[in-house]
Amino acid sequence: MSLAEKIFQGDIRAASRLMRDIDDRMPNAMEELKKIYPKTGNAYIIGITGPPGSGKSTLVDKTVEILRKEGKTLGIVAVDPTSPFTGGAILGDRIRMQRHSIDDGVFIRSLATRGSLGGLSRSTNDIIKVMDAMGKDIIIVETVGVGQDEVDIVNTAHSSVVVLVPGLGDDIQAIKAGILEIGDIFVINKCEREGADRLERELRATLEMGPKREDGWVPPIFKTEAILGKGIFEFVYGVYRHKEKSMGSEHFEKKNAERTKLEFLSVLGSELMDSVMERLKKNKRLDKIIDDLIKKKRNPYSVVKKILDEELKRSS
Amino acid sequence: MSLAEKIFQGDIRAASRLMRDIDDRMPNAMEELKKIYPKTGNAYIIGITGPPGSGKSTLVDKTVEILRKEGKTLGIVAVDPTSPFTGGAILGDRIRMQRHSIDDGVFIRSLATRGSLGGLSRSTNDIIKVMDAMGKDIIIVETVGVGQDEVDIVNTAHSSVVVLVPGLGDDIQAIKAGILEIGDIFVINKCEREGADRLERELRATLEMGPKREDGWVPPIFKTEAILGKGIFEFVYGVYRHKEKSMGSEHFEKKNAERTKLEFLSVLGSELMDSVMERLKKNKRLDKIIDDLIKKKRNPYSVVKKILDEELKRSS
Repeated sequence: MSLAEKIFQGDIRAASRLMRDIDDRMPNAMEELKKIYPKTGNAYIIGITGPPGSGKSTLVDKTVEILRKEGKTLGIVAVDPTSPFTGGAILGDRIRMQRHSIDDGVFIRSLATRGSLGGLSRSTNDIIKVMDAMGKDIIIVETVGVGQDEVDIVNTAHSSVVVLVPGLGDDIQAIKAGILEIGDIFVINKCEREGADRLERELRATLEMGPKREDGWVPPIFKTEAILGKGIFEFVYGVYRHKEKSMGSEHFEKKNAERTKLEFLSVLGSELMDSVMERLKKNKRLDKIIDDLIKKKRNPYSVVKKILDEELKRSS
Repeated sequence: MSLAEKIFQGDIRAASRLMRDIDDRMPNAMEELKKIYPKTGNAYIIGITGPPGSGKSTLVDKTVEILRKEGKTLGIVAVDPTSPFTGGAILGDRIRMQRHSIDDGVFIRSLATRGSLGGLSRSTNDIIKVMDAMGKDIIIVETVGVGQDEVDIVNTAHSSVVVLVPGLGDDIQAIKAGILEIGDIFVINKCEREGADRLERELRATLEMGPKREDGWVPPIFKTEAILGKGIFEFVYGVYRHKEKSMGSEHFEKKNAERTKLEFLSVLGSELMDSVMERLKKNKRLDKIIDDLIKKKRNPYSVVKKILDEELKRSS
């Protein structure tokens, strides 16, 4: 049985192997991804983002608990951009998540790609594809929404959840900019903290002030205390409601199109760069170029122009 | 007089125009960057990073005040990745910075590139080049160090400063991962807050636990209350000390090489993608591809392979 066929049957070891090959950029990974592609597009994708320390992982953990009781199978992609400020979150929170890792219905994968040139969104999308082909009902992508890559990932999920927390210094003025477009659902976690009501009021006011959404959806705000399981049921119900409202709608199709485009562009970008880099690395040419640049014998703009002339069939 | 010549004389309007052209990816921008390149490499680059709310902008503001009194000319690049969690920081902090904007010796530029495929590091590097060619003595790059792009930018500065703040939930366990390699100098800002001493102790212990740096430099920790100007002088002195110790050293050359490589790769990546995308956009071919992908008539991996075959002279 081929790797792809094993994955269709939900084989965890086969899926893990393909994901490892994806990470290592093995040539066969592209071939296997081609094979599984027709069987993808069935999973419902939930994106969860929020600042470090907002308790996203705990929220995901409790959400998984409820969804498992309902018999749903799940894939979880935890995106951790290599960062001095989030790097360590893996330790505590992720260990907590591991209790689900002995459950066959939940497949967890952490991603800490040192993403060069869109590498992060590419790897994330490829891994979502594998989980999708495994037949997972729901795929949750959890990420710290700071880099553009991570925002794009969450923004193209079927339901995008933004987690906030009182007292992190992120008063509503500071989060206004990108948030209105991104969130289908808002969660104020650690709502036992001072300032939760104020944050809720300000968030609601800001949402009301913004332009009406084309799809008519009014993003709900849920208050949770994830660590105690408080408010999680309401939140999960809110996601279901959004799913029902949006499935098949124009908004849904639009997000789908955006994700498809993002997927395509990130594969194109990384394959382009990989191909050119592979040739540049031959005969230590790249080292020679960098050396010349350091010594100011050449300038990077002319070198790039020359490489484009050499590598592209029709460069301008 | 050409744009480049005007820039060599420190002409602010000429520099602004080139930066705008860089932002808009105008074809002439590459030509001008080529011309100014030989006159770059003289500025000392200081990278400052830290989580949102750590007071980086205030620290930069007070640092600029001291450096100006010493007669140094300055370029400041404030990198703000489009993000729901940092977007708004521009409002308050940046306005405070503006008091230096009427000073001819200080050139301030904010960057909020919705960076596709390494676009952020490319734009930042190009703008550093322009300020460098203007003859600025010191260039400060300030960024929220979360995405890989931003971390790379700061990490390749001559002196990398990491700003922390007590009580942001970033206890030392949570920041350990990437921080040891990045910081040449650490600042605990808002040190009047509870937990500053504990943070300092833990940070010092963590730094001591890590491997010794090849260059023998022991990263100092400064405690500041930037808003009142407390501790800033000591911090600036610390940067000078690092500069003196490292200039011409192996570590310095290594950072220089890394930055040169990063610069080159980001120009290469974005020019490659731009060239290919320009051709894909002709005759609405890109729209057709996305449409086919959405309808699952084709799969992205095969489409990318076909494009590489068409566009690259020798693809594998």
